[in-house]
Amino acid sequence: MRPKRLVDAVLFDTFGTVVDWRTGVSQAVSEFSGDVDPNEFALAWRGRYQPSMAPVRNGERPFVDLDVLHRENLEATAAEFGLSLGSADPSDVDWLNRAWHRLPPWPDSVAGLTELKRHFIVGPLSNGHTALLTNMAKHAGLPWDVILGSDLLGTYKPDPRAYLGAAEILRLPPERVMLCAAHNIDLAAAQEAGLRTAFIPRPAEYGPAQRQDLHATGSWDVIAQDITDLATQLREHVVG
Amino acid sequence: MRPKRLVDAVLFDTFGTVVDWRTGVSQAVSEFSGDVDPNEFALAWRGRYQPSMAPVRNGERPFVDLDVLHRENLEATAAEFGLSLGSADPSDVDWLNRAWHRLPPWPDSVAGLTELKRHFIVGPLSNGHTALLTNMAKHAGLPWDVILGSDLLGTYKPDPRAYLGAAEILRLPPERVMLCAAHNIDLAAAQEAGLRTAFIPRPAEYGPAQRQDLHATGSWDVIAQDITDLATQLREHVVG
Repeated sequence: MRPKRLVDAVLFDTFGTVVDWRTGVSQAVSEFSGDVDPNEFALAWRGRYQPSMAPVRNGERPFVDLDVLHRENLEATAAEFGLSLGSADPSDVDWLNRAWHRLPPWPDSVAGLTELKRHFIVGPLSNGHTALLTNMAKHAGLPWDVILGSDLLGTYKPDPRAYLGAAEILRLPPERVMLCAAHNIDLAAAQEAGLRTAFIPRPAEYGPAQRQDLHATGSWDVIAQDITDLATQLREHVVG
Repeated sequence: MRPKRLVDAVLFDTFGTVVDWRTGVSQAVSEFSGDVDPNEFALAWRGRYQPSMAPVRNGERPFVDLDVLHRENLEATAAEFGLSLGSADPSDVDWLNRAWHRLPPWPDSVAGLTELKRHFIVGPLSNGHTALLTNMAKHAGLPWDVILGSDLLGTYKPDPRAYLGAAEILRLPPERVMLCAAHNIDLAAAQEAGLRTAFIPRPAEYGPAQRQDLHATGSWDVIAQDITDLATQLREHVVG
């Protein structure tokens, strides 16, 4: 008598897909210092994100979490912008580094996740670690059922082991798990690993100059306007 | 400007402390077969629980989750009660085994956790694995922030690595984490590992014949009537 559902769990990329890191990090930067452009600083800090995970993904470096990588990237970005961290209170630098724990949700995120939670297991499948994602959820009011941090998976997306490890923790076959992301590259890796996929655009993620990920570029299972629309589209499958 | 709080996270034993396994399992047994006493069968099945985890705790057996141990214990219990599992539909046996995923909460659990969640990270620190605890939470409406299953810790309580591993995943020092349990032996191990402790009695857990854990037997940080009362008592520390 179980309802027909496309999947049992809908997991989410978080940075950019569920929360607006650029606004949240810019805010923290502006509170930390008036000497740099907060938006430019946030973009530069985030720009070091993908390269910093590569050595972990390819096994050159043992797993370290995003607090460690964000801190290394913060120091490099500060040097680039001529911002002295050494002269600041260490607890203020730590507070700035943990801006990634305190990001605001996009306007549709909480309502969309709340609706999806009625029919599906919802959780982040993020490069954030469990502690960061737990703090993020408390701050933003994200109603996750379960939190699947990168520390539990021991690697970073788009390493296939991240997607398969999440399905394994949930004791679900990959095809019963969907990843929703605003980034086509993330969905391509999830699809390759056997997961279902949903794309939502977040054209303001990087600001007015954004050129990537304005549209779906793959054959994803669902293409939605936002998380609320995803919930509406998946409801059809529940009833059907 | 942070409020003073005794701890940052309040974690819970689940089987017996948050959910009523005896009622839930008895119900599933009675639906599976009319040939055995459901309450007696549930007690006997649960009676094999602690011994079955011992080889994992002491390293004689690699970690296997509770679905595996519950299944082995179900088969032994069925043999003891003269109940044939082999003649049943395999999916019905699996459904019975997964009764531990579908347990009802005690009357105060959802309200108490909802109140605690306003001020603290709340989560299970249970011998259940993450998938089981996620299903349990969906079924019982438990509003966890994060789920720390035994599969993530790789061992079973009261192994000290279970308590310390949970604090490590949350990136909190042990003394900023509290375990709430209805079992003194669980709290003794948590306290030994450096966690804060809260006892609540569940005198109906094993039925009218219950003799253990009717009262606190250690010097726990908080002794409460139930989870709602725990939330009330911890609120004093937030305001203070």
